[in-house]
Amino acid sequence: MELLEDRIRRDGKILPGNILKVSSFINHQIDVSLLDELGKEFARRYNGTKVTKILTIEASGIAIACAAAHYFNNCPVVFAKKSQTSNVDDECYRTSVYSYTHSKNYNVVVAKQFISSSDHVLLIDDFLANGSALSGLIDLVKQSGATLAGCGIVIEKGFQDGGEILRKEGNRIESLAIIDSMSVEQGITFRKQ
Amino acid sequence: MELLEDRIRRDGKILPGNILKVSSFINHQIDVSLLDELGKEFARRYNGTKVTKILTIEASGIAIACAAAHYFNNCPVVFAKKSQTSNVDDECYRTSVYSYTHSKNYNVVVAKQFISSSDHVLLIDDFLANGSALSGLIDLVKQSGATLAGCGIVIEKGFQDGGEILRKEGNRIESLAIIDSMSVEQGITFRKQ
Repeated sequence: MELLEDRIRRDGKILPGNILKVSSFINHQIDVSLLDELGKEFARRYNGTKVTKILTIEASGIAIACAAAHYFNNCPVVFAKKSQTSNVDDECYRTSVYSYTHSKNYNVVVAKQFISSSDHVLLIDDFLANGSALSGLIDLVKQSGATLAGCGIVIEKGFQDGGEILRKEGNRIESLAIIDSMSVEQGITFRKQ
Repeated sequence: MELLEDRIRRDGKILPGNILKVSSFINHQIDVSLLDELGKEFARRYNGTKVTKILTIEASGIAIACAAAHYFNNCPVVFAKKSQTSNVDDECYRTSVYSYTHSKNYNVVVAKQFISSSDHVLLIDDFLANGSALSGLIDLVKQSGATLAGCGIVIEKGFQDGGEILRKEGNRIESLAIIDSMSVEQGITFRKQ
């Protein structure tokens, strides 16, 4: 998506260790007009696909998921919560997500009442790299018995293997920008889509 | 705001200990159409007030802040982050917020680059009870030298003293629903506004 790629080139910051900071427009400060366009593009790509609910994970997925929901008939958004406790709880679906940023596992939960087996769930998140967060969300959908309608990612790091592995498992993943390579010296190369 | 009060009456759950759960439409599952109406109402109340930026706190404030931003000329939204470290960092404003839910203090940070002294900041959050989170956000705005345009709260627990204390300190707070009393037996009484 050209608008997004241009914005990443202009305002993204590449840091050593394959880190791309987009905190000035996506995940600390938020450009709501841009998110609106991203939501519209997810809807264009999933045109004709039944979606009854959008599931994301706190915190940076929330704004994107809500922007998208407007273009999916204002369907409800549910955000999975990072839980401090590992208590097993009959009322929640629960999975574990490894954060490379913080080098630790998070318990992630969704109240069972908010995803039912009749739902068609679109997963939305800001980044896809190693795929840990997205795998966790897919696991939550499987536990619920709902249909996975697909996944919508804003920025995929195509040089890490999360996207490839999850697509091979049969999941549809639409990433609005896919980075094939990036470095402080040479900038960013996006995959042609 | 009648629409909101009706929804709280219908879908809110009162639990012992003055807990009101609105997780089916505000802070776990999100009704984006409702949030849109809340955003519109904040804009109506702050009509004529200069707002260049909306500041909220992760996670449940984000969706509300983004919904509101559409009615404040699509101004940028910034969300304060709960920080795991207490490292002093030249690049961030930092404050401490006590969470009664989790009985602990959180460090809350905002990158300095996202609030400048020329900004007019509207604070948005889902709940106001003892006022700890909102005081923290006010503190962040003060550190930045920006002008505090006001505060917009979805649900204020009027029987706790956060709202009263912060208004006495001269802050404008607009709460879309103010609960004067609530109990499992007698339900909710809203303050007439």
